[in-house]
Amino acid sequence: MVPPELDEGLPLERIKDFSLDELLGMAIKAEIGSREFYESLAQRADIEELKRKISWLAGEEKKHEELLRKIYAKMFPGKEVVFPEEHIGPELKPVARELQGVQDIIDLIRWAMKAEEMAAKFYAELENMVEGEDKKRLMRYLSDMEWGHYYTLKAEYELLLDWEMYSQMMHVGP
Amino acid sequence: MVPPELDEGLPLERIKDFSLDELLGMAIKAEIGSREFYESLAQRADIEELKRKISWLAGEEKKHEELLRKIYAKMFPGKEVVFPEEHIGPELKPVARELQGVQDIIDLIRWAMKAEEMAAKFYAELENMVEGEDKKRLMRYLSDMEWGHYYTLKAEYELLLDWEMYSQMMHVGP
Repeated sequence: MVPPELDEGLPLERIKDFSLDELLGMAIKAEIGSREFYESLAQRADIEELKRKISWLAGEEKKHEELLRKIYAKMFPGKEVVFPEEHIGPELKPVARELQGVQDIIDLIRWAMKAEEMAAKFYAELENMVEGEDKKRLMRYLSDMEWGHYYTLKAEYELLLDWEMYSQMMHVGP
Repeated sequence: MVPPELDEGLPLERIKDFSLDELLGMAIKAEIGSREFYESLAQRADIEELKRKISWLAGEEKKHEELLRKIYAKMFPGKEVVFPEEHIGPELKPVARELQGVQDIIDLIRWAMKAEEMAAKFYAELENMVEGEDKKRLMRYLSDMEWGHYYTLKAEYELLLDWEMYSQMMHVGP
């Protein structure tokens, strides 16, 4: 079941239906959505070690947003950022509900992994679309960072599946 | 050229020549070496954003060391940790020299990427060797975390290759 915090979005191949400014707008919107998702998840998750990791992710997404805005400003000087209604790949939204135990957290992390994986692939596609080595490099940077997030989440996800061990190994309460 | 901070170590297939306690000892030693490497690199690298990322990695390796010591204590109760002379894959050592500009940093990060990649593969091999779903899960956790480090480093590496852009995008001085 897809939770309310996730909009599945369009498949990656739809990328060709949008212009570069629209795609950058989508990317900025997605970074904002991810940051708000991680911030709200960090607030609602009651596990210290996980809170710390998730807050770190929120901070990284904030920096990505700033980086993308700079790229946009360089590529489209003076033009306001366009935020299309649609977006490619899953988009994360703030967690507005009370979480019911560790299973809810596990489910949300699984969706966040999916979103990070798609974001990594999205930036890799954008690398092919932008011109100039400097812009390609920045897209590669963002793609690699999102893969980094994916594996960080995957690691926590693996351990959370065995909650008893997680609590024991990570010094956390029941 | 292999820098003084890196010992290339044995190839992954030599893993079968060691017992599990020796392999865990190697892993603990490698986590200590990586932490000291990242701590010293963070001190010597004069780029704020990079310092921050590298210090974060140092903190993660410290936690991995603690986790491995717990696993060891569970698997070999009362037994002191054995640190074999040899080790599988590259081992990082503290950076004791003055770094000469960004190229030195780029080279060290490339070697750190190699070490993280091998560490990820090493833990994946250990996953096959340990018995019990809980221990396998912990090895998967460590392997995923090291992949996370690998991609975090790869992202920085990509941008550092174009130093002019890095400085401009990351608000850093010359």
